[in-house]
Amino acid sequence: MIFTQVYEDSIAYLGERTLLSSIQKWLGPCAPPAPHGMGDDCAVLVPFSSGKPLLTTDSLTFGQHFDSSVSAKDAGAKLIKRNLSDIAAMGGTPSSAVLALLCGPDVSTKWLQQFFEGVRTACFDYSVSLVGGDVSQVKKSAFSAVLTLTGTASVPILRQTAQKNDQIYVTGSLGGSALGKHYAFVPRLMEARWLAKQSECSAMMDLTDGLGKDLSVLCPDKCAVEINLSAVPIASSAYKMAKQSKRKALEHAMCDGEDYELLFSITGNSNRSKFESRWAAAFPELSLTNIGAFVADSRTSKLLDTKTNKVLSMYPGFEHFKLP
Amino acid sequence: MIFTQVYEDSIAYLGERTLLSSIQKWLGPCAPPAPHGMGDDCAVLVPFSSGKPLLTTDSLTFGQHFDSSVSAKDAGAKLIKRNLSDIAAMGGTPSSAVLALLCGPDVSTKWLQQFFEGVRTACFDYSVSLVGGDVSQVKKSAFSAVLTLTGTASVPILRQTAQKNDQIYVTGSLGGSALGKHYAFVPRLMEARWLAKQSECSAMMDLTDGLGKDLSVLCPDKCAVEINLSAVPIASSAYKMAKQSKRKALEHAMCDGEDYELLFSITGNSNRSKFESRWAAAFPELSLTNIGAFVADSRTSKLLDTKTNKVLSMYPGFEHFKLP
Repeated sequence: MIFTQVYEDSIAYLGERTLLSSIQKWLGPCAPPAPHGMGDDCAVLVPFSSGKPLLTTDSLTFGQHFDSSVSAKDAGAKLIKRNLSDIAAMGGTPSSAVLALLCGPDVSTKWLQQFFEGVRTACFDYSVSLVGGDVSQVKKSAFSAVLTLTGTASVPILRQTAQKNDQIYVTGSLGGSALGKHYAFVPRLMEARWLAKQSECSAMMDLTDGLGKDLSVLCPDKCAVEINLSAVPIASSAYKMAKQSKRKALEHAMCDGEDYELLFSITGNSNRSKFESRWAAAFPELSLTNIGAFVADSRTSKLLDTKTNKVLSMYPGFEHFKLP
Repeated sequence: MIFTQVYEDSIAYLGERTLLSSIQKWLGPCAPPAPHGMGDDCAVLVPFSSGKPLLTTDSLTFGQHFDSSVSAKDAGAKLIKRNLSDIAAMGGTPSSAVLALLCGPDVSTKWLQQFFEGVRTACFDYSVSLVGGDVSQVKKSAFSAVLTLTGTASVPILRQTAQKNDQIYVTGSLGGSALGKHYAFVPRLMEARWLAKQSECSAMMDLTDGLGKDLSVLCPDKCAVEINLSAVPIASSAYKMAKQSKRKALEHAMCDGEDYELLFSITGNSNRSKFESRWAAAFPELSLTNIGAFVADSRTSKLLDTKTNKVLSMYPGFEHFKLP
């Protein structure tokens, strides 16, 4: 359990000094010592390799991004992988991170140790150094963690650089991530770096708020997304969710957040079949689906059905702020 | 007020999309657009100037680092300045920042706008670009913000590089920061950069947890801090606090956190009076006080009285975790 009613099992009992040294011990070689790591006012970073430096931040809150059904280890790994997915979305390579913990005094020491096991494993798997952090107290029975991650990219692929007639692709399959993928996903770092090297790739982002909502982010000015709904790759978990929710599986694929797949475009004059063959040769185990194109359209709505050319409006996506 | 019971005045009413665009509007030119700022998966940083890159993170939580007696604007500025003080502590120059907000749905939109006025002013004053961020929801009536700040330093001054016989100095005066200095402080950036250029300066940190506790951080192995208690510069607010608390003003100067002054050492063979004269010429308005030296001592305790050579142990410093 994340919170404990036994004082001796809580981080308040541990105290700040012991907590900080425990965290460094739990992280092992993923947390190098000062000056290139924890223990000073700032971390002195190893100078960035060639390429442009990237910076991103993302948080993880109990009750919002995970609950008691997710193990501490999976929660810790999720925090790192959420940020890795943002680095991937630029075609980048991750480097150093700092972690701010916001813990209620009743956070269980044992739970936190397992959380850091997940952090350590993910840092190790993706060559991330945890070089600094901050621990501060929040209200009882609350827990948030904020990770800020640096990286580099030779040629960062942006969100706002798609053009009219560009073809739209997604990796993997979408929807129903609440059944497990929201923490068990694999950030698409290798695939994104490969895409960044292809001359066809015109824009990219990672799917976090649902395809319907995220497509409108990638859509160029004075264009709309013409989407082939029958092509949208629906995850088996979206079908499972649909049975429970009585909504269509396609709706889950369009609206559920946290797919952590890549959404990208290639220039309209690309040879699609050659591009798709190269992808299949490079990543035979990860499906790639052409779901539509950006077309010139002056209507304010961004989503059109390929077959009917009618405006689609029933895919709102994930809303981060709602009343409890 | 930071929280509102009127739904229409809350950020939940505003919704995520409007909230994000409002934040960009509130920040104005301090928040450049993508790719070198907000709006993509990562910010693409302008390549670091010469010098070593620095990274630090620090948080600000309602009820912990500020309360209703502090204006929203001062709270926003405090978040930036806390991190600036860490960059100063290395002798560095600040550069880009990312901000993660953790807001209850009942955070007042008007309060948040004023918070960002403080953020913007501090960013403007110290040439910080806010290049990215994240907003997520936490429990009702809770608010935290985490800032991660990059910077550079030609020669970073570390905490662990003091040696036996080095002389110890503090800037300004200490104690009683709860009466106002905890948010109204000025990060000692210029002074610290000046110190980093002096060949005498051997180690440095900023004072956040109280002189008694922070001195032990700077103390080299197999040494103790021989402190001249009568020399410790006591702030007038420490005397004010002492009247209320019935403790000695010196205790407040030694134990209260959040002084945000510089604590540093110079090599033992330095010409102290020449060094102090150069300081006085460079910073005539900020006092500098020699409070002791690091001396060889094998006892486990770190703090000795200059006059008696006895171990001092009544200065515990700020403890970040305690039961509510």
